[in-house]
Amino acid sequence: MFLFLRLEITFMVSNSNNDRRILLAHGSGGRMTQELIEEVFGTAFANPFLDRMDDAASLDLTGRIAFTIDSHVVSPIFFPGGDIGRLSLTGTVNDLAMMGARPLYISAGFIIEEGLPFQDLQTIVSSMQQAAAEADVEVVAGDTKVVERGAADGIFITTSGVGSIPAGIQISASGARPGDAVIVSGTIGDHGAAIISRRGGMDFNVELTSDCAPLGGLVADMLAASSEIHALRDPTRGGVAATLNEIAAASGVDIEIGEDLIPFQGEVRAACELLGLDPLFLANEGKLVAFVAQADAARVLDAMRRHPLGADACIVGSVAAAERDHCRVFARTVLGSRRILSMPSGEQLPRIC
Amino acid sequence: MFLFLRLEITFMVSNSNNDRRILLAHGSGGRMTQELIEEVFGTAFANPFLDRMDDAASLDLTGRIAFTIDSHVVSPIFFPGGDIGRLSLTGTVNDLAMMGARPLYISAGFIIEEGLPFQDLQTIVSSMQQAAAEADVEVVAGDTKVVERGAADGIFITTSGVGSIPAGIQISASGARPGDAVIVSGTIGDHGAAIISRRGGMDFNVELTSDCAPLGGLVADMLAASSEIHALRDPTRGGVAATLNEIAAASGVDIEIGEDLIPFQGEVRAACELLGLDPLFLANEGKLVAFVAQADAARVLDAMRRHPLGADACIVGSVAAAERDHCRVFARTVLGSRRILSMPSGEQLPRIC
Repeated sequence: MFLFLRLEITFMVSNSNNDRRILLAHGSGGRMTQELIEEVFGTAFANPFLDRMDDAASLDLTGRIAFTIDSHVVSPIFFPGGDIGRLSLTGTVNDLAMMGARPLYISAGFIIEEGLPFQDLQTIVSSMQQAAAEADVEVVAGDTKVVERGAADGIFITTSGVGSIPAGIQISASGARPGDAVIVSGTIGDHGAAIISRRGGMDFNVELTSDCAPLGGLVADMLAASSEIHALRDPTRGGVAATLNEIAAASGVDIEIGEDLIPFQGEVRAACELLGLDPLFLANEGKLVAFVAQADAARVLDAMRRHPLGADACIVGSVAAAERDHCRVFARTVLGSRRILSMPSGEQLPRIC
Repeated sequence: MFLFLRLEITFMVSNSNNDRRILLAHGSGGRMTQELIEEVFGTAFANPFLDRMDDAASLDLTGRIAFTIDSHVVSPIFFPGGDIGRLSLTGTVNDLAMMGARPLYISAGFIIEEGLPFQDLQTIVSSMQQAAAEADVEVVAGDTKVVERGAADGIFITTSGVGSIPAGIQISASGARPGDAVIVSGTIGDHGAAIISRRGGMDFNVELTSDCAPLGGLVADMLAASSEIHALRDPTRGGVAATLNEIAAASGVDIEIGEDLIPFQGEVRAACELLGLDPLFLANEGKLVAFVAQADAARVLDAMRRHPLGADACIVGSVAAAERDHCRVFARTVLGSRRILSMPSGEQLPRIC
């Protein structure tokens, strides 16, 4: 009888643990905030910087430093191939890598809606830590705010990052030059398609998976292969179309790509045809577009293909001097005609990242 | 007739400008995002780092770097003495200053609810820039996300910052030592009281004003006066009570303050008495608590009082060796008895910052 009672109590406790939810008091700055930090963040991210519990991390850095920030509001927060934790870590790591920097340290600000299951937060934080380990970075500072039910949607995560730009590296959105080859690191549109597949109860027979991955290692291999990488960008919101238009405008050049040269997964192409979407406008979270001097293109491509995140890399176009004052991006169709690939004007899919 | 028509049209256009609101497409990563960045952020924060429109800012830094992040969800977003823009800038500047660092560069991630008046965003961004000028820092990187109506409450701003820690400075929450004097830089509870006065339709006869201000300059003057400043913290969420408990725990010491030594504005004390709140638990956004070697306390106090943000600075207590394993904070009452000032356990006031 006694044993039976013990078991029942144990069951109740464990059940109540599964039902634990984030409360407003977890964002109070008081004891419950401390407990949340120790239990969730301290456990996942333990490192000497964070463990000091100071107002800021104290880092030893020298030389040129890349510094960036990205807010993440993706919906749903869990999706095939990742979650908002992994996304928020890789998003900022990739922004640093696109400067040619070695990503080093990350800080993260969490805005949590009251009522978020404790277990969800733990899963999210643990996949952030997993991504941080893959990217070889450390999460050294954080902040948590809790807002009342209905004042946010689940969880938003803003990550900021610093990285070290090696001497001699001059990579910028304004660096593309006429004659450069345009290289993409792999199949396009995977993240956008994965999010779409989980929205509004759509039922696809195939599983579309986000490409969400940290690109610092791939970029390091590319930089080792060539000193003539002029511009890099990860085509997130707005997709490859937005990235090419941004680089064209910043560098004052025209860009032409071949539609048939862009690598797509068959499932992504099928989903886009079904929904009437142009995959060039779909977000990517583990891909980059590189602008490389023609003479070095083959060597860079070779280095990329040897890296797991660049296995499907290919040259998709080239840069030309601007024909007019207004820089433009062209897509050459399979039939040989050219169409202007414009900057996306409206919102294809809110909360993609 | 023609003239009349012209005037009418002009009026309509100007009216529609006043009614402009943030749309989901402003967060698309496409043309409307670019326009928003150029019109609002580019105009306010114009500087060579931001103007390059790269994925990250490229900064020249050397030595020890402080790095921090803070999310801001204050409600209401406009309050007496500031708004979420000023708060988000000063919050992060102050975290850097509390490490003894010279605050240098800020990045900001905006999460905006669809429908926020364009004019509100412009006001917020412009008071961020005003605070940045006061603090002598530059906003060098940013990100904007827009979520659908009801998925956020107006606007949330996460700011991250980097600052340079001068050689020889070793300030940490774990640095307080027995014998240190405890100094506060001015009146306590002003920010918390200002927010409370604007919540739930409370009607106070007096205007309670937030103390929201950047403390980098004050800290620089203190550091110039003494090399024996052991710990600094800005008592934000959880107030002076939380800060003292955090420092006691991190440094392994006891702290005793005199209740009658703490400076309060009369209006704040009156509001607290009316509402049954302890002002030691109210948030501050332009104050600091310093732990300074007794021998240097008068000199540091003197330097603080010469700075506009430290005019009301005073010594409020001292640090002692921990009496037990568990470090404690005591408040000596006017009657001479001691009470334990504990860490706030619940949530006094959600969304204070």
